[in-house]
Amino acid sequence: MYTARVYVTLKASVLDPQGRAVERALHALGYGEVRGVRVGKVIDVTVEAPDAGAARRRVEEMGRRLLANPVMETFEIESVKPASGAAVEG
Amino acid sequence: MYTARVYVTLKASVLDPQGRAVERALHALGYGEVRGVRVGKVIDVTVEAPDAGAARRRVEEMGRRLLANPVMETFEIESVKPASGAAVEG
Repeated sequence: MYTARVYVTLKASVLDPQGRAVERALHALGYGEVRGVRVGKVIDVTVEAPDAGAARRRVEEMGRRLLANPVMETFEIESVKPASGAAVEG
Repeated sequence: MYTARVYVTLKASVLDPQGRAVERALHALGYGEVRGVRVGKVIDVTVEAPDAGAARRRVEEMGRRLLANPVMETFEIESVKPASGAAVEG
């Protein structure tokens, strides 16, 4: 079993209201040096696969088909590692 | 300016209904090899700071104070890099 870590982030041209809200909250807490905040998703997908390369190919396909919205988001697979037991709990 | 990439993930003991929903959707699409899905956040924080170490210390403090809920979540700073122009758009 392998766990692939996938980032799904908004394209740079897309407004990110959640990021703006976090930025304002940080300013209100006194972190005036904050110049921008973007919020995306990190999705850890644990799969049965014969090897890490096969796991990566399948998760790439899942990313294109389901995990990311190609109009507004981009996704990248950050890593593919042998799964630890704790990672598979839903 | 530096951009710190922060992961905020649910603790392993906390149920993740969004991850379960993604897992079921992947099964329905024919990805029967999926054994678990966990969904977290990735937050890119761009700050003015004299150096990368100072940026990391400030963002760690922000993580503890605002970005993560310590009861249910853990956070880690994945990287601190010189900011690109595109990253600071809110």
